[in-house]
Amino acid sequence: MNPDIKRERENATFDVGKLTNILDQGQEKTKRRREIESLVFKDPDFNEQDPNFLSRSERYDQAVRKSAQMILKLREFGIADPEEIYHYKSCVHPDRPSPLDLHLAMFLPTLLNQATAEQMDRFFTSAWNLEIIGTYAQTEMGHGTHLRGLETTATYDPSTQEFVLNSPTVSSIKWWPGGLGKSSNHAIVLAQLYTLGKCHGLHAFIVPIRDMDTHEPLPGIVVGDIGPKFGFNEVDNGYLKLENVRIPRENMLMKHAKVEPDGTYLKPQSAKLTYGTMVFVRSMIVGESARALAKSCTIAIRYSVVRHQSEIRPGEPEPQILDYQTQQYKLFPLLATAYAFTFVGHYMTKIYHRITGDINQGDLSELPELHALSAGLKAFTTWEANSGIEVCRMSCGGHGYSRSSGLPDIYVEFTPTCTYEGENTVMMLQTARYLVKSYRQAREGQQLSGIVSYLNEPRDRRVQPQAVAARPTVVDINDLSSLVEVYKLRAAILVEMAARSIQQELQHRKSPEDAWNGSAIDLVRASDAHCHYVVVKVFADKLGEIGDTAIHSVLSTLALLYAMNGIAKNSGDFLKAGLLSVHQVLQTSVRIKELLAQLRPNAVALVDAFDIHDKKLNSVLGRYDGNVYEQMFEWARSSPLNATEVHESFHKYLKPLRSKL
Amino acid sequence: MNPDIKRERENATFDVGKLTNILDQGQEKTKRRREIESLVFKDPDFNEQDPNFLSRSERYDQAVRKSAQMILKLREFGIADPEEIYHYKSCVHPDRPSPLDLHLAMFLPTLLNQATAEQMDRFFTSAWNLEIIGTYAQTEMGHGTHLRGLETTATYDPSTQEFVLNSPTVSSIKWWPGGLGKSSNHAIVLAQLYTLGKCHGLHAFIVPIRDMDTHEPLPGIVVGDIGPKFGFNEVDNGYLKLENVRIPRENMLMKHAKVEPDGTYLKPQSAKLTYGTMVFVRSMIVGESARALAKSCTIAIRYSVVRHQSEIRPGEPEPQILDYQTQQYKLFPLLATAYAFTFVGHYMTKIYHRITGDINQGDLSELPELHALSAGLKAFTTWEANSGIEVCRMSCGGHGYSRSSGLPDIYVEFTPTCTYEGENTVMMLQTARYLVKSYRQAREGQQLSGIVSYLNEPRDRRVQPQAVAARPTVVDINDLSSLVEVYKLRAAILVEMAARSIQQELQHRKSPEDAWNGSAIDLVRASDAHCHYVVVKVFADKLGEIGDTAIHSVLSTLALLYAMNGIAKNSGDFLKAGLLSVHQVLQTSVRIKELLAQLRPNAVALVDAFDIHDKKLNSVLGRYDGNVYEQMFEWARSSPLNATEVHESFHKYLKPLRSKL
Repeated sequence: MNPDIKRERENATFDVGKLTNILDQGQEKTKRRREIESLVFKDPDFNEQDPNFLSRSERYDQAVRKSAQMILKLREFGIADPEEIYHYKSCVHPDRPSPLDLHLAMFLPTLLNQATAEQMDRFFTSAWNLEIIGTYAQTEMGHGTHLRGLETTATYDPSTQEFVLNSPTVSSIKWWPGGLGKSSNHAIVLAQLYTLGKCHGLHAFIVPIRDMDTHEPLPGIVVGDIGPKFGFNEVDNGYLKLENVRIPRENMLMKHAKVEPDGTYLKPQSAKLTYGTMVFVRSMIVGESARALAKSCTIAIRYSVVRHQSEIRPGEPEPQILDYQTQQYKLFPLLATAYAFTFVGHYMTKIYHRITGDINQGDLSELPELHALSAGLKAFTTWEANSGIEVCRMSCGGHGYSRSSGLPDIYVEFTPTCTYEGENTVMMLQTARYLVKSYRQAREGQQLSGIVSYLNEPRDRRVQPQAVAARPTVVDINDLSSLVEVYKLRAAILVEMAARSIQQELQHRKSPEDAWNGSAIDLVRASDAHCHYVVVKVFADKLGEIGDTAIHSVLSTLALLYAMNGIAKNSGDFLKAGLLSVHQVLQTSVRIKELLAQLRPNAVALVDAFDIHDKKLNSVLGRYDGNVYEQMFEWARSSPLNATEVHESFHKYLKPLRSKL
Repeated sequence: MNPDIKRERENATFDVGKLTNILDQGQEKTKRRREIESLVFKDPDFNEQDPNFLSRSERYDQAVRKSAQMILKLREFGIADPEEIYHYKSCVHPDRPSPLDLHLAMFLPTLLNQATAEQMDRFFTSAWNLEIIGTYAQTEMGHGTHLRGLETTATYDPSTQEFVLNSPTVSSIKWWPGGLGKSSNHAIVLAQLYTLGKCHGLHAFIVPIRDMDTHEPLPGIVVGDIGPKFGFNEVDNGYLKLENVRIPRENMLMKHAKVEPDGTYLKPQSAKLTYGTMVFVRSMIVGESARALAKSCTIAIRYSVVRHQSEIRPGEPEPQILDYQTQQYKLFPLLATAYAFTFVGHYMTKIYHRITGDINQGDLSELPELHALSAGLKAFTTWEANSGIEVCRMSCGGHGYSRSSGLPDIYVEFTPTCTYEGENTVMMLQTARYLVKSYRQAREGQQLSGIVSYLNEPRDRRVQPQAVAARPTVVDINDLSSLVEVYKLRAAILVEMAARSIQQELQHRKSPEDAWNGSAIDLVRASDAHCHYVVVKVFADKLGEIGDTAIHSVLSTLALLYAMNGIAKNSGDFLKAGLLSVHQVLQTSVRIKELLAQLRPNAVALVDAFDIHDKKLNSVLGRYDGNVYEQMFEWARSSPLNATEVHESFHKYLKPLRSKL
C-alpha cells in the first residue's frame, strides 16, 4: 500500500467499519452486500474487457453477454429480493446501465401492475423467461416530460377488434427507450387511445416489434438504435416508428381502463395510483446522487493524498495536495453533500414505504406532499451531484480527464438523471406549485401538516424581506439546530416572495398562467430553498440517531460544514431577509476554514467508509491501495492504439507526404 | 426553413450582418473568414465520416489523413498568415484538436525561438516539410503546472559530448503531450539539466524518438498512446519513457542557455522572455471560451424556438420553450457571457500586442500585469464557459445528451482548458499574488498604474466590509457605468479582505507560506472579483465604440443583463460590503426578468450573428434551417449499430438463453 494513504488511515479518529454499517443501514446489510459483491467479482463468467477499449458494438455485445449470464446466475443462486438483485446487477455491470434494464425494471413491473389475469397468462411467463424481451416506450422525439403532448395514436377498429397504432409525425417517433433499438422483441407502447371517434388520452399497449424466431422487425415496424450518446454506450436506446401496426384488442393493458369489443371505453377507477411508481423512481434517484458523489469524492480524495505537488514552504518536500486549502474547499463540502444525500436517500425510502402503506389502506392524503418532495429533491440532489462530479474530476488535474480515472464515466452515466424521470426545472416548478398552494392555504388559516407546516408559523416570527442590521439576532451559527431554523425561515421567505411575485404579476392584469411563468425564476428558487432546508434538517436529525461518540463528532463537523457552506454560497438570501447579520456571514466564512482543517485528518477514512469496491470504482486514481502511477502506465500500455508500435496511418499518409512537399 | 425560426429572424430589431462584422473585428475579416470556410467545406478532399460513428483508431486515422491534406493545401493556396491558418485548420478539423497541432503550434515555434542558427539548419527545414514530426514533451505523469517538480534528467557526459536522458521514476514518464503517442518522430523534451555534478534546472532538448524510415521507436525509447480520454479522441496524447537515451550536445536548444563541450554551463540572459508565449496562449484561451459558449448558445437557443413543449395557457398550442422564463434565465445570461468574453478576447489580444511591442523595445514594466491578467481571465472565462456549456446541453432536454446535438463534443473538447496551460485554481492564486502585492504597494503610498490602479483610490471612497443599510446609496442600478463602479469596489474590498486574512494568519504566528495557504479561499475570491470587474468594464467600454443605434441598444441590454446577473448571483458580496442596499438587490432581480423579456425577440438574431457555419456547429439541434427532427432521424438511421437489422448478440446470447431457463 502507498505509504501516504496508509498513514492517512492510521490517523483516522473513528472506526470506519462502524460508519459503513450506518451508511448501509445495518451491520447485516453490509455483510450481505459484501457477500454479493464477492459472488460477482470472483465469478470468471463476469470477467470483462475494459469497455473504454471497445467499440460501441463490442460494448453492447459484452453487456448483453453479461446480462444473459446474470439472469442465469440469479436463478441459480435463488437471489430474488429486489435490493439484492440491485446489488448483484450493479456489480455485474459496475454502475453502468445495461440493455435489459427496462425489461427488468419497467416491462415486467408494468405487466404486474396493469395487466389483466388473462394478459399475465399470455405474457408474463414468456417475459420472465426472456423469450419475450420488452421495453417501455413512452418518450417520443418531440415530447418527454409533458405526457399530454405525446402523439402516437392507437385507434380502435371494432370491425376486426384490433387497435391500429401509428406514428403520425416525425416528432411522434418513439425515441430513447432503453433496449428498444436492438434487444427487445416487444414494447409496451404509450399511445393516445381513440375509440368511437373520441380520444381518451394516454394508454399502454403491448406491441410485438420483432419476430420471435428471427428477431427481424415485423411489418409496419421501423426500429433501430438512436446512435451514440454522451454515455450509456452499453444501452441500445432506440427509436420506433409505427406504420399501421395492428394488435388485438386484448393487447391493451386493461387492468384499470378498458375498451370493450364494441369500442366502448371504460374509465379507470383512480388515476392517482400510478403516481406511486414515479415517486419511487425519483426517491431512488436521490440515492443515486449520493452514490455518484460518494464515488467521485472517493477517487478525488484518495488521489489528493497520494499526489504531491508544488510547494507551500520553500525547500520542503512537495506537500500532499489535500493540504492545500483550496483543494479541501473543493472536496470537503462535496464529501459533506455525499453524506447528506445518503441520509436523505434513506429518509425518502422510509417515508415512501410509510406512505405506500397508507395508500394501500386507502389514505391518499400524504401523497401530494410526497410527490412534491420527491420531485424537488430529485432535482436538487441531481443538480448538486452533477456539478460536484465535475469539480472532483477537475480537482484531479489532467489525469481526471483520462478515462482511466473513472470520473468521465461517472459523469456521463449520471448526468441524464437531471433530465429523465422529469426534467429538473419542471420538477422544481411542480414542487413550487405545492408550496405556493400550501402557502395560500396557510394564509387562509388552514393548519398544514407535514414538512410544509412551517408555512403556518406566525408571520411575525418570519422576518420581512428587508435587511434590518439592528435586529437582535438570536442565531448561533455554531449550533446546527439554529442553522436548521435559519434555513427554514429562508425557505418560508422565498416561498412568500414567489407567491407575492405571482400576486404582483396578476395585478398587472396578467392571466394566472402568465403570472406563473413570469414568476418562474422565483418559484424555482423557493423550491430550491425548501429542498435545501429539508436536506439540512434530515442531516441534523440523523445525528440524533448516532450513538458512537467518535462518529457523531466527525459527522457533526460534516453537517456543520454542509450547512455553513450553503449559507456562504447563498449569503445574499440570508442577508436580504435579515436572517443573519453581516458579521455572522463573515464569521461563517472563517468557521468554514476551521472546519476544513478539522476534517482533513479524517478525509480518507470518511471516503473509505463508503466502502466502494475497487472493481466498482474502476479508477486508477481512486484505488484503495493508492498505487496510482504504476497502474496508470499499465492501463495505457494495454490500450488498443498501442497494439502495434506503428499505426498504419504513418505509411498511408505521413510518409507519402514527404515526397509531395 | 422551419417557420418558427424564420419568424424569429424576421422579428429581429437589428442588422445581423453588421453585428457579425463587429464580432469579427471588421467587414473584411468576415469576408475572408467566409472565403476560407467555403474553401474547406467545398473541398471533397476534406469530406469526413462522422467521428461519432468511428472507432478511436479510425478517428485518429481520419484526422491524420486530413492533417496531411491540409499541409499540402495550405502550401498550394499560399495561406501563411497565422490567423488564416487558424481559420483553415478549424474548418478542416471542425473545432477538434488534431494529431499535428503540437508540431505546428509548439515544435516549430520553439525551434524558431530557442534554436541556434546551426540547429535551424539541421532541423527546421525537415520539420517544415514534415519529415521531422515533432511534439513538445513537458508534462510528466507526476507534474504539470508546477514546472520545478519535473523529474526527467539530462546529464551531460563530457567524454562523449552527449547528454544522457532518463526517466528516473514512474512519475517522471512524460505524459499527455499531443502527437507524442503515434505521430511524432522527434520530441522537444524538457528536462533537468545536470552538468559537472550540478543541476541547472529545466532546459529543452531535441530527442529523436522514432526511426525516420520505419517509424519504429529508437533504442531506449518507450513510447505510446496514453489511452482513451473524455475527449481529444483524434489526438494521440502520449507517454515517453527515456532509458539512457544519448543525444549529441548540439541537440540542446542553445539560443539562450548553453553547455560548452567541456561541460561548462552558461546562463541565459533573461528568463522573463519565455513568459510571452504563456501569456499569448492564455489570451487565446479566453477567445476559445467565448467561441465554445457561442456555439453552445447557438445550438440551445435555436432549438428552443423550434421545440414546442407543455403549456403556459390551457387549451392553447404548446409554446416555444424559449417563451418560458426559466429557459430564458438559463440561456440569456450565457448569451451575454459569450458576447462579454468575445470582447474580452479582443481586448486581451490587443494589449498583448501592445505590450509585446514594448517588450521588444526592452520595456518589461507591464509584463507582470499582463501575466496576472491573462492567468486570471483564463481561469475565470474557462470556468464560466465550462459550466455554461453544460447548462446549454441540459436545456435541450434529452436530445442534448445525444452526440447528434454536438454539445457533448463541445464540452469534452473544451473542458481541458480549465486544467491545461496552468490549472485554474493555481492561475487564480497567481493573479491574487499580483493583486495582494499591488495592494501592499498602494498601502505604502506607491502610485499603481494599469488596471489595478483602483487599489490606489482613497480608502474612504472604498466602503468597509460592513453592511450599513443607512449609508447614502449613489449607485444607479440601471446605469451600466455605475455598475462597473460597483464591481470595482467589490474587487477592491475582496482584495483588501484577502490581504487582511493573510495578516491575521501571520498574527497567529504562522509562517508567510502557511498564512498564504490559510487565506487561499479568500485569495481566489479576490481574483475572481477582479476578473469579473475587468469583464464588466471591457463590455461597457466596448459599447462606446458601437455606432449603430440598433446594435448599441441590444448590446446594452446584454451588457446590463451580464452585470446584473453577476450581482444577483453574488449578492452576498455586495450586501456585505454595503455597496448595494437590500432594496437595490431585490430591484435587480426584477430588472433581470424585464431584460430577459426584452432580449427574447432578438435571441435568434444574436446567435446568428456569431455566424457559425453548420459544418462547424455539427449539431442537428442547432442547424441554421431549424429542421431538427427529420435530421435527427436521418442521423440515427445511419449510425453503425443499425448497419444490420439484427445484432449478432441476439444469436449468441439471447436466443440460446431461452433453452436454459
